[in-house]
Amino acid sequence: MHVAPGMVEIALPASPSVSQQHGFVHAGALAAIADTAAGYAALSLMPPGVGVLTTEFKINLVAPAKGNGVRARGRVVKAGRTLTLAQTEVVAETATGEKLVALLTATLMVIEGREGIAD
Amino acid sequence: MHVAPGMVEIALPASPSVSQQHGFVHAGALAAIADTAAGYAALSLMPPGVGVLTTEFKINLVAPAKGNGVRARGRVVKAGRTLTLAQTEVVAETATGEKLVALLTATLMVIEGREGIAD
Amino acid sequence: MHVAPGMVEIALPASPSVSQQHGFVHAGALAAIADTAAGYAALSLMPPGVGVLTTEFKINLVAPAKGNGVRARGRVVKAGRTLTLAQTEVVAETATGEKLVALLTATLMVIEGREGIAD
Amino acid sequence: MHVAPGMVEIALPASPSVSQQHGFVHAGALAAIADTAAGYAALSLMPPGVGVLTTEFKINLVAPAKGNGVRARGRVVKAGRTLTLAQTEVVAETATGEKLVALLTATLMVIEGREGIAD
Repeated sequence: MHVAPGMVEIALPASPSVSQQHGFVHAGALAAIADTAAGYAALSLMPPGVGVLTTEFKINLVAPAKGNGVRARGRVVKAGRTLTLAQTEVVAETATGEKLVALLTATLMVIEGREGIAD
Repeated sequence: MHVAPGMVEIALPASPSVSQQHGFVHAGALAAIADTAAGYAALSLMPPGVGVLTTEFKINLVAPAKGNGVRARGRVVKAGRTLTLAQTEVVAETATGEKLVALLTATLMVIEGREGIAD
Repeated sequence: MHVAPGMVEIALPASPSVSQQHGFVHAGALAAIADTAAGYAALSLMPPGVGVLTTEFKINLVAPAKGNGVRARGRVVKAGRTLTLAQTEVVAETATGEKLVALLTATLMVIEGREGIAD
Repeated sequence: MHVAPGMVEIALPASPSVSQQHGFVHAGALAAIADTAAGYAALSLMPPGVGVLTTEFKINLVAPAKGNGVRARGRVVKAGRTLTLAQTEVVAETATGEKLVALLTATLMVIEGREGIAD
């Protein structure tokens, strides 16, 4: 995992445990690492002791994730007082280079001294 | 797993492997079972030999998934020739009953004789 | 417009000003009334003096909006302290009855004594 | 309107007819021009005689649209055989420069010789 302020990259090697029936990385696994990258990107801009929680995300799956593994690159689009918008590109590493497989946008809520979503 | 035409229910017991740091079911795991329930709901209306692929989904996470486990109930909203829209409600099973934790809407593409997304 | 606690219905008659080139109601107009219905549904549960602001919405357009007009029915899925999730179904009124044309989910943020989104 | 292959920019001057009660451009109007920019960006890559139809979009509204007007910049993220993914950034023109107000992702379906969504 690589982290810079407002940006995070997570790599996931291909393996049977994250693959679906055709041998591609499962959409659920893609969504999980894409959401995680978005969350850490948001967190990288927060002061110590502050957490973030995903309130919603949308993911478009544009190509099958086949290859040697995938990389999820999250970056903060807009950091707000209450809500932060982040976006993650997920690429597959193939023999001929990187290929976009998914695009996620997520809203993260800042959490201070509370566990869980506002209720 | 319970399946009826256009509807699917998947149960996921709480366990450490699907929990995040606060002991709730991880958002990625919720998204994965919600997407799976939506996909099987769409598939339940398809003729034999036809597959479906998620092209996009959005999930709103409205409460922490704490309790004895979660249930994802997918149903088809609109079955089309090329695209099907499905929706999944995810509820947590608590001591006092069920509580909504997430709502997902997904677009599924019908796949006949092809592997993977159109490219 | 019909309003009940947590529910709002808005009717939009078909007219050239809201139609696109094929004579259907424009997607942008559908999104606008669907978002408005979601917002008023959320507002109907708020105390006096409190406002709401849409922070994000997603709309799936499942059929062309042709007929005598459209109706947008918004309802609150989950009312939270900071964020409220609402959903709107948009139906077209046709000679043979109602037909679903769009489904929207929206996140609304509660605004007290502030104008505009947190910044 | 400015168009290049895979990219479209649409400008909307501020005016009372597209403003909501606080004087900002209405979310529905933002969504409409953002969706339009995404659609034309997709169309700019299509052969003559082929149309596109929005099947779904999501918009995150990150700041109030106040200023002299807004610009929507749509670009194609991935052009596929059946579906195209496009993204639009909407910025407000203020005295101190441009400010991001909204981010939209849209799925467009290619339409050949048919009117309306597959049914």
